[in-house]
Amino acid sequence: MTISMYQSSVPVFIRELEILSNILAKAASHATEKKIEETVLLNSRLFPDMFPLVRQVQIACDAAKTGAARLAEVELPSFPDVEVTFAELQERIVKTVKFLESLKAEQIDGKEDLKISYTQRNKESNFIGQPYLLNYVLPNLYFHITTTYGILRHNGVDLGKKDYLGSY
Amino acid sequence: MTISMYQSSVPVFIRELEILSNILAKAASHATEKKIEETVLLNSRLFPDMFPLVRQVQIACDAAKTGAARLAEVELPSFPDVEVTFAELQERIVKTVKFLESLKAEQIDGKEDLKISYTQRNKESNFIGQPYLLNYVLPNLYFHITTTYGILRHNGVDLGKKDYLGSY
Repeated sequence: MTISMYQSSVPVFIRELEILSNILAKAASHATEKKIEETVLLNSRLFPDMFPLVRQVQIACDAAKTGAARLAEVELPSFPDVEVTFAELQERIVKTVKFLESLKAEQIDGKEDLKISYTQRNKESNFIGQPYLLNYVLPNLYFHITTTYGILRHNGVDLGKKDYLGSY
Repeated sequence: MTISMYQSSVPVFIRELEILSNILAKAASHATEKKIEETVLLNSRLFPDMFPLVRQVQIACDAAKTGAARLAEVELPSFPDVEVTFAELQERIVKTVKFLESLKAEQIDGKEDLKISYTQRNKESNFIGQPYLLNYVLPNLYFHITTTYGILRHNGVDLGKKDYLGSY
């Protein structure tokens, strides 16, 4: 096994989205069991000007999807932000994983020096492939998964570090 | 530039610890400005059975230090968990970065298939180099940095996503 741009991105993203899916499944069970309305958890935040849980999950999916698409130089699939239930968030994860699985190693390997430029909300961003992956996409993905975990823990959902780390 | 085990670990760890240091510096200024005792922030948690901020920072340092040492097959430097101020946490980060800087690329490159085995708290762990880095060390490091950020945001410290992502 040799580390590569593909190995450090797509399989890691898929693994992390599966972990996110398991965490959300536990949160949904907790809500049912404790008779908590799903929307209470989905709209929870760690601070008023931080994003609520539902948005954390959407952004985690988008970080993986967008990161992989830009590195592979393929069109970004667009998923509208319409989810209002845990089941719908699970569907979004499934869609994202399906897209990631459609990418082949040779589309991403060797993209260390790829120039990546895009304009988002009137702001131009310029990256190089390797730092884009290591210093932007991965930290961003982990941020939103950890924050999802933190919001749920803060609300008393019975999760542990093992749920975040997954099996290895 | 080519991605490698070294490139995906040591420089990333150093960058993340510098980001953590900047976040803690902002938290310390906030405490001074608002006349909040440092220990209040240092002992804050997102939930009673989660670690407080001081421990999150210690573990972030240890995740980087231990991950790099095991991949480089060098002795683990031991830093006792004694910090009780932001200044002391900053010193721990400095010590950790110094250790990371002492490692050379050739000590870590090519360690994709390295067998890593150790016993901690009576539990034996067995890893292979590449999944150890990608699926354990990096997610763990990001977890503790994001949770530090989350605890501080939850306590009203004026931080933004830029502080977490750093410059890129």
